[in-house]
Amino acid sequence: MTKGHGTANDFVLIDDPDAGERLDAEAVRELTDRRRGIGGDGLIRVVRSSALMHGDQTAHRAGDAAAAGAEWFMDYRNADGSIAEMCGNGVRVFAHYLVENGLVDASAPILVGTRGGVKTVTVVPDPAGGPAPWYRVDMGAWDLPAARTGDVERGADSIVTTRGTDVARPAVSVDMGNPHTVVALPSLHELISADLGAVPDVDPVPPHGTNVEFIVVDADGDDDPRTGRLRMRVHERGVGETMACGTGACAAALAARFWAGHDGPVDWTVDQPGGPVRVEIEADRVFLSGPAVLVADVTLLD
Amino acid sequence: MTKGHGTANDFVLIDDPDAGERLDAEAVRELTDRRRGIGGDGLIRVVRSSALMHGDQTAHRAGDAAAAGAEWFMDYRNADGSIAEMCGNGVRVFAHYLVENGLVDASAPILVGTRGGVKTVTVVPDPAGGPAPWYRVDMGAWDLPAARTGDVERGADSIVTTRGTDVARPAVSVDMGNPHTVVALPSLHELISADLGAVPDVDPVPPHGTNVEFIVVDADGDDDPRTGRLRMRVHERGVGETMACGTGACAAALAARFWAGHDGPVDWTVDQPGGPVRVEIEADRVFLSGPAVLVADVTLLD
Repeated sequence: MTKGHGTANDFVLIDDPDAGERLDAEAVRELTDRRRGIGGDGLIRVVRSSALMHGDQTAHRAGDAAAAGAEWFMDYRNADGSIAEMCGNGVRVFAHYLVENGLVDASAPILVGTRGGVKTVTVVPDPAGGPAPWYRVDMGAWDLPAARTGDVERGADSIVTTRGTDVARPAVSVDMGNPHTVVALPSLHELISADLGAVPDVDPVPPHGTNVEFIVVDADGDDDPRTGRLRMRVHERGVGETMACGTGACAAALAARFWAGHDGPVDWTVDQPGGPVRVEIEADRVFLSGPAVLVADVTLLD
Repeated sequence: MTKGHGTANDFVLIDDPDAGERLDAEAVRELTDRRRGIGGDGLIRVVRSSALMHGDQTAHRAGDAAAAGAEWFMDYRNADGSIAEMCGNGVRVFAHYLVENGLVDASAPILVGTRGGVKTVTVVPDPAGGPAPWYRVDMGAWDLPAARTGDVERGADSIVTTRGTDVARPAVSVDMGNPHTVVALPSLHELISADLGAVPDVDPVPPHGTNVEFIVVDADGDDDPRTGRLRMRVHERGVGETMACGTGACAAALAARFWAGHDGPVDWTVDQPGGPVRVEIEADRVFLSGPAVLVADVTLLD
């Protein structure tokens, strides 16, 4: 068993190539318990797609993955034991695990089976020049409804009011497979002092809830909308404030591009409390790059 | 390296018999970081008292321990990297580690060196009949000032008001080496619904702060004040609500005995969110018994 993290989003990884482990919700909760277990935001079973093709609720997704050439499947569980489709930070840690354990060829694109479809991951250099590799994930297509409607003039399709302030700010919805609402704040001070201890008030109320990203766009000394740096804090639906959110960083960059009135390719750095990631938008796809760390090998006692 | 816990108070244990590890505050913070490291409320270095006798800020305490026959010293650090004297849950986990690794004779009392003096720990059966051993720690002497003063008639020497309610309740101070203030609530409902998210308002304000224990005394079907069951939640000074507090459980039992108007030996079970412990008061000493679990062996990567 291994503990790893990507921008402080942390996971317990279980090596189970042949799908022999019985992994019910209670076992997941025990392992991800931060005090009585190993601790993690989620648990990732490392399993061959071919081994999951039969007798599992994930069978058809694993079958798709195997057919697409994804030898390995990221069987992701939330800390509460529920099944999840995808995790943008988790898939980097998963790919790093495969590379470090010699299970894939790191010089070629790595195909990772997930319940959200097959993800293509490539090993890239750390843009800051660090010695550890980064991982670049094709996060697929997105939708920014305001860009398709009259809301584009207003630059917003919703209103977010944070707790502890009565200021209501325009916000824009982004669908990354999961729902996001992005709000721009006018200053770093306001970003740092925002109280994300409660669920932000979003109007209209999203039917299935939403992740809310608060961002500040840093000028990078020029007016080129293709590059720049965002600072972001995120309140995740059903969780609360977290150190980082992969799909949230993508949504933040998409919103910033929309507000800049630009629709060509962009390359943004998104600084989150858990660390920086890079978001590239190319045509109709978004790519998320960031670090992945394997912290420790873990052997359960008793 | 090992991860362990006692009633959900969790620790990283480092095997360092010869005191060869360089363990500065930053290293402690990195290891106890729950997302980027192993995670724990504290870190315990397992070191020979004789190895610490020279060249360490703990030298004189280790010298005392070695002279008293305590071969092993619990070098305890808080998660923020600061030094701590003692930890009632940690010392059980420490003793369990020594036993499981064959470093002491489990059939005799185990002497554990700490910065709070040498603690005597014995292996005892789980009172609920479970297969795992419990550990009984002589926590030493205490002080309950109200029992020595006119406050004994009032049954209180302070007032605690919890957030979210305007109810001010009488409370009693207990010194267990660290400061405690114990408040009795009238019902389990009130205990469960109490908001411990903020520092409780204690009057008079303790000069160095205080841990605050909220307790409900369960009738056990008879009027014998020597036995019974308490339910407790605790707000730890400088930390917030925690799952369990060893000295807090002792303080709770001492307060309950005081309110019962009893001054002989008692044997109480204290149920905390992290699990039950047993508190025995004998003459001028208090003994805390509870479970200890070694969760996993951990090997750092990179």
